Amino acid sequence: MANVPSHSPRELRSELGNLAPRVEHALDVAFRTCAVGPGCPPRLHDAQRYALFPGGGRLRPQLCLVAAIACGDGRPEVADAAAAAIELLHCASLVHDDLPCFDDADMRRGKPSVHKVFGEALALLVGDAFIVHSFDVIVRSGSTDPARLRPLLQTLAAAAGTTRGILAGQAWESEPVAPLEEYQRAKTASLFEAAAAMGAIAAGAPPQPWRGFGEALGRAYQAVDDLNDAIGDARRIGKPTGRDAALGRPSIVRAFGVEAARARVELLLGAALAGMPRCGGENVVLAWLESLSKRLGIR
Amino acid sequence: MANVPSHSPRELRSELGNLAPRVEHALDVAFRTCAVGPGCPPRLHDAQRYALFPGGGRLRPQLCLVAAIACGDGRPEVADAAAAAIELLHCASLVHDDLPCFDDADMRRGKPSVHKVFGEALALLVGDAFIVHSFDVIVRSGSTDPARLRPLLQTLAAAAGTTRGILAGQAWESEPVAPLEEYQRAKTASLFEAAAAMGAIAAGAPPQPWRGFGEALGRAYQAVDDLNDAIGDARRIGKPTGRDAALGRPSIVRAFGVEAARARVELLLGAALAGMPRCGGENVVLAWLESLSKRLGIR
Repeated sequence: MANVPSHSPRELRSELGNLAPRVEHALDVAFRTCAVGPGCPPRLHDAQRYALFPGGGRLRPQLCLVAAIACGDGRPEVADAAAAAIELLHCASLVHDDLPCFDDADMRRGKPSVHKVFGEALALLVGDAFIVHSFDVIVRSGSTDPARLRPLLQTLAAAAGTTRGILAGQAWESEPVAPLEEYQRAKTASLFEAAAAMGAIAAGAPPQPWRGFGEALGRAYQAVDDLNDAIGDARRIGKPTGRDAALGRPSIVRAFGVEAARARVELLLGAALAGMPRCGGENVVLAWLESLSKRLGIR
Repeated sequence: MANVPSHSPRELRSELGNLAPRVEHALDVAFRTCAVGPGCPPRLHDAQRYALFPGGGRLRPQLCLVAAIACGDGRPEVADAAAAAIELLHCASLVHDDLPCFDDADMRRGKPSVHKVFGEALALLVGDAFIVHSFDVIVRSGSTDPARLRPLLQTLAAAAGTTRGILAGQAWESEPVAPLEEYQRAKTASLFEAAAAMGAIAAGAPPQPWRGFGEALGRAYQAVDDLNDAIGDARRIGKPTGRDAALGRPSIVRAFGVEAARARVELLLGAALAGMPRCGGENVVLAWLESLSKRLGIR
């Protein structure tokens, strides 16, 4: 599969420097084509914009694009649609998670959460809408390559779904006992897995090797998130901390302690690196992982 | 387009008699393949089943199948998937509509609403899940005919969407002033339009002539619903009445009175009949419309 020429240091800087603006551009296009237009009620328009821009770390859509770039990025417009779909689904889960019947979180990404500004009814609709748009943006991208449509949509549906996707993860919180591994796999790792796989599919590469890579990364990210919740600074991370303990949520820190959670982050990042797909564009992935580790405060 | 032989009275009885069980079978298959399985948290499993079975009138999936049958029903398994997708999307909107931040309805389809039995968090997730499954069931049907995948999904996304679909309709309820026509078109008629169009697409027929037919039928149904809310019997229709006035919702009865609403039902059904697509299978559509009128208590 080493069909993609390795990037020179200069090309590497250019690809990585362009990653964040490329994600924002993809989301802007998705917002304008799928979310708003004549007929959209004004407050729904504003609430959708508020929930989508400005974003947080945009890790998942970046992972999607990094996988696509590493695989040659043969259909950049399809990769952009996949990245937008992944972030829309993630934002849907955040908006619904913040509602009073879930985490009852007043702040998100350093500003009042959607229901605090627009009310619960509109926050509910914004989450619903982002689920619809996540599929819609992929369907629209199918005009340029119908053959990639079905695997992209299958991967997206599984990542969102009720057996191993985000919705299963959220629903474990309504059970008397939630299995930690399965809960975190469904709630977080599934979307990282889908992000990496969809990037590969968009570029015309086999997605299978990217699944394990994305999943390990997602599990590592969840361990960092658990650490942030337990010992992080709410202002720096832009959302309340101490929620896992307050809400009785399964957490690696709660189950095994801070040091074990830190060790787990290292272990999982090592596993992700060791399992990195041989695609020819490995140095792009490595460079992105390095910048990501810095952002997440990992040694 | 008269390529479908007209049904004999015997075939007609058989097709129509099979309609309700065929819808239930399609939903049962969709439930088992998309909604549940290993990994699905037990309460989410139960809440999804509770929200989907037993159903109400199943008008929208029936309309979808009637359109497919009238067009020759060349791919019955795709028509079944389309019908299931339409009903899943409808049920998603009902479960979310019933939540306290919307209509705060304790009863639906003659039994306690989903959040009354399973709590708000699970009701929220069930609605989210049904949106995901509505796309997923179509994607899965694409294995037998990939060419029909994109138009089916485009039609579904538009019917759900934020510019002219259900979500736009629900969001009009959060605006200080909602335009009655646009509100009802988005909230109700869009899904009837999609149901008829998707039935035609599933059968390989051009959907355009079916859109106006479905829309007129949807508008007529909304007028009947407004009448039921204003002067109906809550026990007979299985949900609370008087909600439009209590919640300040735009309604044909509130805007123009009971007699005007009744006249509108007649007018719209006449328009639907007059615009019925010439497909060869008109007598199936006519026979279904007749049984529908009886069920809705229309002369």
